[in-house]
Amino acid sequence: MTIERRSERDSMGEILVESDKYWGAQTQRSLDFFKIGRERFPKEMIQALGILKKSAALANHSLGLLSEDKTQYIVKAASEVIDGKLDEHFPLVIWQTGSGTQSNMNANEVISNRANELAGSKLGSKFPIHPNDDTNKGQSSNDTFPTAMHICIAKLVTEKLLPSIEDLTQALQKHVDDFSEIIKIGRTHWMDATPISLGQEFSGYVQQLRYGKARVEKALPAVLRLAIGGTAVGTGLNAHPDFARVVVNEINKETNLAFTNADNFFEALAANDSLVELSGSLKSLAASLFKIANDIRYMGSGPRAGLSELILPENEPGSSIMPGKVNPTQCEALSMVALQVFGNDVAVNMGGASGHFELNVFKPLIFINVYHSIQLLSDAMQSFQKHCIEGLQPNTKKMKLYLEQSLMLVTALNPYIGYDKAAEIAKYAHKQELSLKEAAFQLGYVTETEWALWMDPKKMI
Amino acid sequence: MTIERRSERDSMGEILVESDKYWGAQTQRSLDFFKIGRERFPKEMIQALGILKKSAALANHSLGLLSEDKTQYIVKAASEVIDGKLDEHFPLVIWQTGSGTQSNMNANEVISNRANELAGSKLGSKFPIHPNDDTNKGQSSNDTFPTAMHICIAKLVTEKLLPSIEDLTQALQKHVDDFSEIIKIGRTHWMDATPISLGQEFSGYVQQLRYGKARVEKALPAVLRLAIGGTAVGTGLNAHPDFARVVVNEINKETNLAFTNADNFFEALAANDSLVELSGSLKSLAASLFKIANDIRYMGSGPRAGLSELILPENEPGSSIMPGKVNPTQCEALSMVALQVFGNDVAVNMGGASGHFELNVFKPLIFINVYHSIQLLSDAMQSFQKHCIEGLQPNTKKMKLYLEQSLMLVTALNPYIGYDKAAEIAKYAHKQELSLKEAAFQLGYVTETEWALWMDPKKMI
Amino acid sequence: MTIERRSERDSMGEILVESDKYWGAQTQRSLDFFKIGRERFPKEMIQALGILKKSAALANHSLGLLSEDKTQYIVKAASEVIDGKLDEHFPLVIWQTGSGTQSNMNANEVISNRANELAGSKLGSKFPIHPNDDTNKGQSSNDTFPTAMHICIAKLVTEKLLPSIEDLTQALQKHVDDFSEIIKIGRTHWMDATPISLGQEFSGYVQQLRYGKARVEKALPAVLRLAIGGTAVGTGLNAHPDFARVVVNEINKETNLAFTNADNFFEALAANDSLVELSGSLKSLAASLFKIANDIRYMGSGPRAGLSELILPENEPGSSIMPGKVNPTQCEALSMVALQVFGNDVAVNMGGASGHFELNVFKPLIFINVYHSIQLLSDAMQSFQKHCIEGLQPNTKKMKLYLEQSLMLVTALNPYIGYDKAAEIAKYAHKQELSLKEAAFQLGYVTETEWALWMDPKKMI
Amino acid sequence: MTIERRSERDSMGEILVESDKYWGAQTQRSLDFFKIGRERFPKEMIQALGILKKSAALANHSLGLLSEDKTQYIVKAASEVIDGKLDEHFPLVIWQTGSGTQSNMNANEVISNRANELAGSKLGSKFPIHPNDDTNKGQSSNDTFPTAMHICIAKLVTEKLLPSIEDLTQALQKHVDDFSEIIKIGRTHWMDATPISLGQEFSGYVQQLRYGKARVEKALPAVLRLAIGGTAVGTGLNAHPDFARVVVNEINKETNLAFTNADNFFEALAANDSLVELSGSLKSLAASLFKIANDIRYMGSGPRAGLSELILPENEPGSSIMPGKVNPTQCEALSMVALQVFGNDVAVNMGGASGHFELNVFKPLIFINVYHSIQLLSDAMQSFQKHCIEGLQPNTKKMKLYLEQSLMLVTALNPYIGYDKAAEIAKYAHKQELSLKEAAFQLGYVTETEWALWMDPKKMI
Repeated sequence: MTIERRSERDSMGEILVESDKYWGAQTQRSLDFFKIGRERFPKEMIQALGILKKSAALANHSLGLLSEDKTQYIVKAASEVIDGKLDEHFPLVIWQTGSGTQSNMNANEVISNRANELAGSKLGSKFPIHPNDDTNKGQSSNDTFPTAMHICIAKLVTEKLLPSIEDLTQALQKHVDDFSEIIKIGRTHWMDATPISLGQEFSGYVQQLRYGKARVEKALPAVLRLAIGGTAVGTGLNAHPDFARVVVNEINKETNLAFTNADNFFEALAANDSLVELSGSLKSLAASLFKIANDIRYMGSGPRAGLSELILPENEPGSSIMPGKVNPTQCEALSMVALQVFGNDVAVNMGGASGHFELNVFKPLIFINVYHSIQLLSDAMQSFQKHCIEGLQPNTKKMKLYLEQSLMLVTALNPYIGYDKAAEIAKYAHKQELSLKEAAFQLGYVTETEWALWMDPKKMI
Repeated sequence: MTIERRSERDSMGEILVESDKYWGAQTQRSLDFFKIGRERFPKEMIQALGILKKSAALANHSLGLLSEDKTQYIVKAASEVIDGKLDEHFPLVIWQTGSGTQSNMNANEVISNRANELAGSKLGSKFPIHPNDDTNKGQSSNDTFPTAMHICIAKLVTEKLLPSIEDLTQALQKHVDDFSEIIKIGRTHWMDATPISLGQEFSGYVQQLRYGKARVEKALPAVLRLAIGGTAVGTGLNAHPDFARVVVNEINKETNLAFTNADNFFEALAANDSLVELSGSLKSLAASLFKIANDIRYMGSGPRAGLSELILPENEPGSSIMPGKVNPTQCEALSMVALQVFGNDVAVNMGGASGHFELNVFKPLIFINVYHSIQLLSDAMQSFQKHCIEGLQPNTKKMKLYLEQSLMLVTALNPYIGYDKAAEIAKYAHKQELSLKEAAFQLGYVTETEWALWMDPKKMI
Repeated sequence: MTIERRSERDSMGEILVESDKYWGAQTQRSLDFFKIGRERFPKEMIQALGILKKSAALANHSLGLLSEDKTQYIVKAASEVIDGKLDEHFPLVIWQTGSGTQSNMNANEVISNRANELAGSKLGSKFPIHPNDDTNKGQSSNDTFPTAMHICIAKLVTEKLLPSIEDLTQALQKHVDDFSEIIKIGRTHWMDATPISLGQEFSGYVQQLRYGKARVEKALPAVLRLAIGGTAVGTGLNAHPDFARVVVNEINKETNLAFTNADNFFEALAANDSLVELSGSLKSLAASLFKIANDIRYMGSGPRAGLSELILPENEPGSSIMPGKVNPTQCEALSMVALQVFGNDVAVNMGGASGHFELNVFKPLIFINVYHSIQLLSDAMQSFQKHCIEGLQPNTKKMKLYLEQSLMLVTALNPYIGYDKAAEIAKYAHKQELSLKEAAFQLGYVTETEWALWMDPKKMI
Repeated sequence: MTIERRSERDSMGEILVESDKYWGAQTQRSLDFFKIGRERFPKEMIQALGILKKSAALANHSLGLLSEDKTQYIVKAASEVIDGKLDEHFPLVIWQTGSGTQSNMNANEVISNRANELAGSKLGSKFPIHPNDDTNKGQSSNDTFPTAMHICIAKLVTEKLLPSIEDLTQALQKHVDDFSEIIKIGRTHWMDATPISLGQEFSGYVQQLRYGKARVEKALPAVLRLAIGGTAVGTGLNAHPDFARVVVNEINKETNLAFTNADNFFEALAANDSLVELSGSLKSLAASLFKIANDIRYMGSGPRAGLSELILPENEPGSSIMPGKVNPTQCEALSMVALQVFGNDVAVNMGGASGHFELNVFKPLIFINVYHSIQLLSDAMQSFQKHCIEGLQPNTKKMKLYLEQSLMLVTALNPYIGYDKAAEIAKYAHKQELSLKEAAFQLGYVTETEWALWMDPKKMI
């Protein structure tokens, strides 16, 4: 079977493209020159490019720079991009030019070709819609690509990440309430410590996530600042003076978000500090989740030779060789994701630091790592919530046993008999394998009445 | 020469300590058991412990839990710690127990021994002031140590880091103004691009730093939240219910900062997410500084075979073998510091993620990395400002030459003749080694009048 | 359209699976419980599982533990897995259980169902071939999964990464030879230094890559050590004492590589240090490539306002707005990949450190990061070689000009007139905008004859 | 009290230096211009500079380039540097020029001034010994500084790190032997698994460390390659053709190590890949140590509400508030160090990647991070060995109890009754809170005789 091809051209000359594809010469060149990895730009980024191109056409039109006809065709084609109908025409991989120029041109070419088709013209004709002069009017890859990155990321944060944090927080908060009366032994340094309620322990997780959400929210305004309007180097050359303002207005209509114009276009092109900042909030969230996942995993350990304070939902057989084994697999997936986010953050930092002069050319690297972190964190939190947290059950019998045996309740005696004597009691109990009470009485430091008065675990939490 | 020693004791028993040292048994054990690295806790952290111990004594006194006498002696001794008079009595290294217990006890022991000395009692007597029962009253290492960490870091951020960012910003802003009329060729992908003014380029740096400062400021409230009051596991066992509130009030009087009580003590002990967050803002700042330092370094390259757009201050001979060489050494120091901050951030992330149950026991690791990052960034920004930025001079001759030769001014023709013809002009000029103007005329795409009208670099910025 | 489903069961009970899929109950549970990210295990890993399962069946057969019939069916089904015919039946994502149990069971289930089908039995019947008792005979996920990881990675390193390094090295070596006579000004600290030949500069890159290859080769033996035979916890429970030896022999026949048995099965399951080590060699290679890509990018900068010492191949238009612009895009892709490898390495390190007791349960995380690093480095080196290095051309005119203008040739005078006088000459030339020669004569430190004798750049390289 | 000062001069002019200090003008300038951080170059690096300068003088002498007199004075002064007598005259901090030029000049100046003093001349006279023309003869900072880095690091690795690994390995190996008969329940995913002996568990640690040592040893040859002889840019300008060979010979005599000449001087100056590689071996070791420290910590948890399989030495009181508490502090220190090494590695990677053209100017950053990693790992391993591993005791009673209660011994039934029935037994026992044996009998899958035959834990390890 022969694949039919048509000719497309750009400033480098002619090149053949498969006839049923809307992309043009520059996309084709990128396909040929960058066979690196298998990952293409994700659909959410293609959608963001569609949103931007549609908004730009509308803005140029309202500024009197693009005819009604051209505008309608571009808007129609761009809308198809937004709706995901043309995803297969965006074949480019992440590891291409560091400015994303080729993906911007991919959008320009696909939208122009499709628009020309809608206008009854031929693919490759660049008529009536020219990919550079019309679809890219008043724009440069250097401002469109970071703008599309921000649109994509801001949408994902708002629509996916923040709700996922909130849902997990709610699921944990439910346990804070349910577990508030369950007293257990606290642990510091992995060693038995003074008592705490299981609900208090979970309240720490809830607090971590509430702060985590706030951290992401604090980083969001920077992502809402858009580079569009800066064109090639930040000066806005070839863009109408009002273009930046009007196009952001259009983008807000399309997305229902509150994007703003960059305060300084030179910063907006040359640096990607906004995403470095956002990634910083993601890694903080990852640190919290790693802690929470580990605590749950450890408390669920056993069933007979572990801590066994929690009973985790049994979702799937845990072993191909050990019959009946069940593992804390949701904790494992979440903690792996957290470490991946730490790694992604390092790549983002170094990419963010590596801009030179008027442009940072590590944009696809920065984008994909932030994108992955958001996707993985969101998905893993949802999975953890539904398949682990919601079905958690306390093993109250085991917690009661530990509490009764513990030596660290001795701490409550400090105010009455002093740290040194209290230490003597604990050490004596440990060495003689006694209960605290037995040790206290044998050493003669506390009376029955005092014990009853001072040593109530309920008062210690 | 024999070193005189006295006996000190703790719950483990007796141990000898050099007679002229105020520390006690637990500090001595730590010295013996942790010979790891050479770095001790820095003086700012010792001061923070002094502030906390003084404030705790005052709080316990005002709550009726500590006698006037004991309070006075503790306050006096702690004030000496604050004033740096007892620094030599804090010999412990960073790499000890992960809770900082031994450094908390070091503070308790030194203050108690010194207080007892002031009270006319003997070192090692624990009378009238007991290190655990009095100096540590209502406290645990688990809440004091993170509290002291936060006091130390918040002071450094406020008193050192933020002013250093501000000063560097001002120094750069001065150049934004001075260089506003100097037009130069922009560079994207290291390739010649459309024109920009040198002042615009510097305005990007200023914007990066303004955002950088704001990022640190956004992270500060979390650092101002103090764990004190949570005692051993967050329940506040053995602390007066009002202790947390009162002690923070005292700390604020001592520091003139606005510390608050932790919203949730369980989170405040078990996690150190606040410092993970702060470190995230530091790495974002580092990314900005790396970019700025590099731009200056590259623009200062030469003097004859580089870009030579800036003339950097000649501070010191640059080579032991190449006579007359001068190097961008301040840029180098700053960029090395930035990469160190990236490394420190990784250690902080993983340490922050590694808390278990009621306590994170990677506190010294987290502290020292955040501390180093703040110190290095502050010092390096100050040095960079004074010894590089302030003395920067533009090489206007070179910039003018580049501007005249450049081909990318052709971009300004896009709106008039379209991208494709403009590309043809640039490529023709490049191949034929012509100026743009010559190429445009030879190809017949632009007239003299049009050229004069469309091609003014001043209008391109 | 209704999707037809059949019932499959495991120790948790029954579950429905799409009728045209070979997978069984455990794969289906994993699909339902782990909707995290979109990335499935790559085909090379599925192939490695096929190789392992085929080899295990043959080994069990030759040890008299698996009937001829069962063996033949398993081998046939596993061969289809190896040939990539059943890829669609391996739907599981990376972010699942940390032991890879579900992917091991996916292989067991697909091979068993397909084998049973070949035997004329029904899917889901587990007869005559049982996924656990036959296909997984003498195995546990805990030894099969790391074994498959190592098979996959060792093959990729051998068949893809090492040849890619070698090819790039050869391409650079060609320039070492071609450019050996081109003398240019050296640069240290981005400042003009003493002369060097362009060939010498490239010889440094060649040396970096030769070492880089050797580093990977040194790390390979650890990857060639296989965990298989350790079963659940390293004791080899339920595996024939000779199984480990025999199965590795079969794997070597299948792969033509030289795998060995792990020296210690406990280490082989509980740690993944081998891949941490390998990742260490990959990040070292990445550091080298980042340096090389940057040098080429900087030397190619311009064309008129940069260093312009090299002319890079013009592969694609560089800008959607600046006509005629060409960018060092291959350098950009390669340097982005290098930073990604740095990030991946961090995730690998932390995952590698996080094993507990008898098993590291961060295996999918470790695998995917090492896998990505190898793929990206290999692809990017090939792309860089073909589309950048091979077409590189020296701009000899520019290099000659820089050499003539430079002041650092003064270094050659040190042995004759001393560092201090040489420095005086250089500084005088710089201030007065003279050539070195003019300055030397004006200061009277060198005669014409001496100059001719001492100052030949050709002798300086 | 007035501090007396003398005048020193360099190519920048005169500058005042404290009279009792041997350093000269360039050191003084660096002191003034780089007030960044507090950490000076460590004594081992100063010693390495002394070794190099002594060896260089001897080499130049034997090549007929330095008079007997000058040689003797330089050797005498350099020997004092080697012996640590002049440490106070090396005041420079890490964060200076990225080539270490100022520290090389510090060595040149101190040795020259001290040599001149020995020769009866005045400090600052540069006569008879000139810092650049004599002490630095045939050298550049660009080859001396990386050479001194390598000398320093190679000595530390050989004399400190490798013995520390070996000692810890031996201490663990002793337990492998002592604990070989202690059978315990294995744990995978933190869940009870099939049995293992405590000795087998420790054998995994031993194996990790043996590999870890081998990894460092494999990285050492790269560190033994010295840059000396390359001078400014790798061409060896101004050095005698035999200098490189002869000086390495002298260094080997001084150090008893087997240093070699760099294969390619351009690589040796422009890249620091050797230390990136070494750092890669250090992070692999750190990953192993983190795992080992954690296992010990977890097994030592309790004493009553943890796993309590090991009893850790009680070195110091664990809490300022909880009397009698003892914590796994050595595990904590070691695990903090491991994470620091991960952070340091990131800084090394990025510094290593950031060389440009003929020189990497992130050398002090790379050095200090590798140096710290080696020091901390060595110290922490020694501390861990002496204060934790050597005193470890098994809690056999607890381990026996866990073993008896465990359900995972059911795995041994797989070969006899199949995975599915075995799973049924385990699940039944778990739900009904029975022992395995009771469950097996109640379900009628195994007879008494079979049980006795098949279910001996001793046969399972």
